[in-house]
Amino acid sequence: MVKVVIDTMALDPNTNTPVMVLKEEKGVRTLPIWIGIAEASAIALYRSNKKFERPLTHDLMKLIIEGFHARLVKIVIDDLKDNTFFAKLYLEIDQNKAAVIDARPSDAVALALRLNAPLFVEEKVWEAQTKAEPKAQEEKKADELRKNLRDIDPSDFGKYSLG
Amino acid sequence: MVKVVIDTMALDPNTNTPVMVLKEEKGVRTLPIWIGIAEASAIALYRSNKKFERPLTHDLMKLIIEGFHARLVKIVIDDLKDNTFFAKLYLEIDQNKAAVIDARPSDAVALALRLNAPLFVEEKVWEAQTKAEPKAQEEKKADELRKNLRDIDPSDFGKYSLG
Repeated sequence: MVKVVIDTMALDPNTNTPVMVLKEEKGVRTLPIWIGIAEASAIALYRSNKKFERPLTHDLMKLIIEGFHARLVKIVIDDLKDNTFFAKLYLEIDQNKAAVIDARPSDAVALALRLNAPLFVEEKVWEAQTKAEPKAQEEKKADELRKNLRDIDPSDFGKYSLG
Repeated sequence: MVKVVIDTMALDPNTNTPVMVLKEEKGVRTLPIWIGIAEASAIALYRSNKKFERPLTHDLMKLIIEGFHARLVKIVIDDLKDNTFFAKLYLEIDQNKAAVIDARPSDAVALALRLNAPLFVEEKVWEAQTKAEPKAQEEKKADELRKNLRDIDPSDFGKYSLG
């Protein structure tokens, strides 16, 4: 299991789909994950430090977890099947009770940011990604992707996240 | 406190903004609330009975609450200030612990639908709405709104809710 951070939040100009690029905290491997507009907005707006008067959806999720006096211990992206990434939330309540919840990586990351929880990617996910294409090609593709992506401005999604 | 149900989910054709129209369960008063696209999508998709392989954001919120063996007792829309509606989630855990969480009405309703929790609107909200405009005008406006609105097809938002 490898600790990761968000490298870039970007828009794939070919499809106009948001991409969340994760990067090993102590390494060079990157993991691009194509995600939904609402979830990308939830991540980008939080990173922009923009304050909202009312809780946005992932803020509410945070408030619910805090309302239970629970803690988000970590999130783990733990599988990649048919081009779909899978993640899990590891929650702890009263120190002796735990819950492991199935989530999409986008929601998991949007929530982890708000609760200062660390992000991990299982080794099998890096392997599944590498297996799909030879390593050299993989790195070249990631490089190209990074060149083609432009950094997301939260205003790209602003209108989807209010109300 | 008055129990309400969803009357219509619609798009305001002037602004292309989604509107959630609530209606008294045993009465005729309606309460239109303009909401965000992502939240309207979360409500409309659930009502369409469309199934998704992966949990959408409000499905994840449901999974978290169930993971804590908690219960959403009710949601209450309890204030209207400067054209902004306020709501609260009433959660119960272990029967003796409770949490009351501040939420936007759109998130509250999207979650209540998924957890079969009843929806309420405080009398002061109806009054605040009526105070803003004389009653006759109010009813006329609601009628006009209903005529002008067209029912939302979940495909109107489909692309915002995936990934």
